[in-house]
Amino acid sequence: MASSKPFAVLLSPDVKEAVKAVKEAVSQRKTILVIGNCWVHYRGRASSKLKPGERILIIKEDGSLLVHRSVGYEPVNWQPPGCIFHTQLKNNVLEIHAVRQKPAESVKVFFDKIHMVSALSLVDAGEFSLYASEEDMQKAILLEPSLVEEGFTPMSYEKKVEPGFVDVYGVDKDGNFVVVEIKRKTAGNEAVLQLARYVDAIKSRVNREVRGILVAPNIAKGVQSLLATLELDFKALHPKKCAGILKRSETRKLETFFEK
Amino acid sequence: MASSKPFAVLLSPDVKEAVKAVKEAVSQRKTILVIGNCWVHYRGRASSKLKPGERILIIKEDGSLLVHRSVGYEPVNWQPPGCIFHTQLKNNVLEIHAVRQKPAESVKVFFDKIHMVSALSLVDAGEFSLYASEEDMQKAILLEPSLVEEGFTPMSYEKKVEPGFVDVYGVDKDGNFVVVEIKRKTAGNEAVLQLARYVDAIKSRVNREVRGILVAPNIAKGVQSLLATLELDFKALHPKKCAGILKRSETRKLETFFEK
Repeated sequence: MASSKPFAVLLSPDVKEAVKAVKEAVSQRKTILVIGNCWVHYRGRASSKLKPGERILIIKEDGSLLVHRSVGYEPVNWQPPGCIFHTQLKNNVLEIHAVRQKPAESVKVFFDKIHMVSALSLVDAGEFSLYASEEDMQKAILLEPSLVEEGFTPMSYEKKVEPGFVDVYGVDKDGNFVVVEIKRKTAGNEAVLQLARYVDAIKSRVNREVRGILVAPNIAKGVQSLLATLELDFKALHPKKCAGILKRSETRKLETFFEK
Repeated sequence: MASSKPFAVLLSPDVKEAVKAVKEAVSQRKTILVIGNCWVHYRGRASSKLKPGERILIIKEDGSLLVHRSVGYEPVNWQPPGCIFHTQLKNNVLEIHAVRQKPAESVKVFFDKIHMVSALSLVDAGEFSLYASEEDMQKAILLEPSLVEEGFTPMSYEKKVEPGFVDVYGVDKDGNFVVVEIKRKTAGNEAVLQLARYVDAIKSRVNREVRGILVAPNIAKGVQSLLATLELDFKALHPKKCAGILKRSETRKLETFFEK
């Protein structure tokens, strides 16, 4: 394959041609696709064997590796970025070894029949932005209450308390009531005063300690002193983190099989 | 692309050709690769936007979707199996919508320049087998002690106790000492007697209740009665599950960015 091309494809190469193309593409740190009949051995924290079948192998510029079957959202085998690759021809089989040192683990992919080898120089500077609403943050906290603090246990949410609705309401590890007010952007004095009103409203009804925790990615200048005066707490939490937790919680449900 | 071919490739198609090829391949439930310049919108539990760049889109036979950049072991956007796909041509752009109902979420991928469309019928019946050693199981238990039981807290492992080494040693939620004996295969009476010897050895040294828990994928016939006689517990745990936990624990460390 011409090394200067941003997109080179070999269709139905013989094994020898494929070895040459993969070697060249690895040395040039290209993104590589190999589609064909392969089997895979993994040895590391545990070990696995994948018997022969037609799959898609992806090697990325950063030295990560993925083996994808025709079904399943997750790769059947993979290595994170930073692998060292060894490519060789052995008994008319293309062998690609992806090796990591820490922890020591290796994935070996063996191809005996190859539909395609492709070497890509992907130009990609596009920014990825993720948005999560205050409702998303609330859901994430209900899923992982330790986002607020260790030992926090939510009891309800959207609890009606004059003058409005409390985002999350629960108890801390010492049994105190906790009112959580969530903001997805930098929180100002207004958010603190809103939280204080909820705390006061609940204090007037129960004879127990009531704490208020403001949850937001950060607070505006000067807000810390108002929090201190009103004896309220602040917990930094980014909406992006919440979005990740929500997505992962859903993904986990899908993980009925354990890969690699 | 000829629908009967197990492996069809269109190189540098115009957008209209690409739309036709993707539509056809989706209707035939093929595995589809689209490589080109694209941007991606996601809307669901949270929402995200990925600005234009060259990427690899994979649609699988089971209706899952992955968008891979040239770096990063994880896809930047994805949908799990079971999506409904809508493919259309709009303003000379190839639009692929992958929609799920529960939870409601959609990924929209827009291509304005396409290097390749490939439709694959991958033949793959190869079995995937995963092996984990007793040491792997021990590590998994130290990472996730609730694998043994809720409230279990490990204190040490490979603790020397005549007549050998205790796999994992800890306390349960009521403060009792707990000795855990791990077997990666069906446990027989021999494993139970080994555990009993450790429990007795520790009982002779402490003046607290000492429990013994045998952890194995399953127990042989007749072993339950010996466990009952000796007042020892059994917890079913498969080495495969442990291997998954170990792999995931390592993967989690890599997840500094939250996708989708």
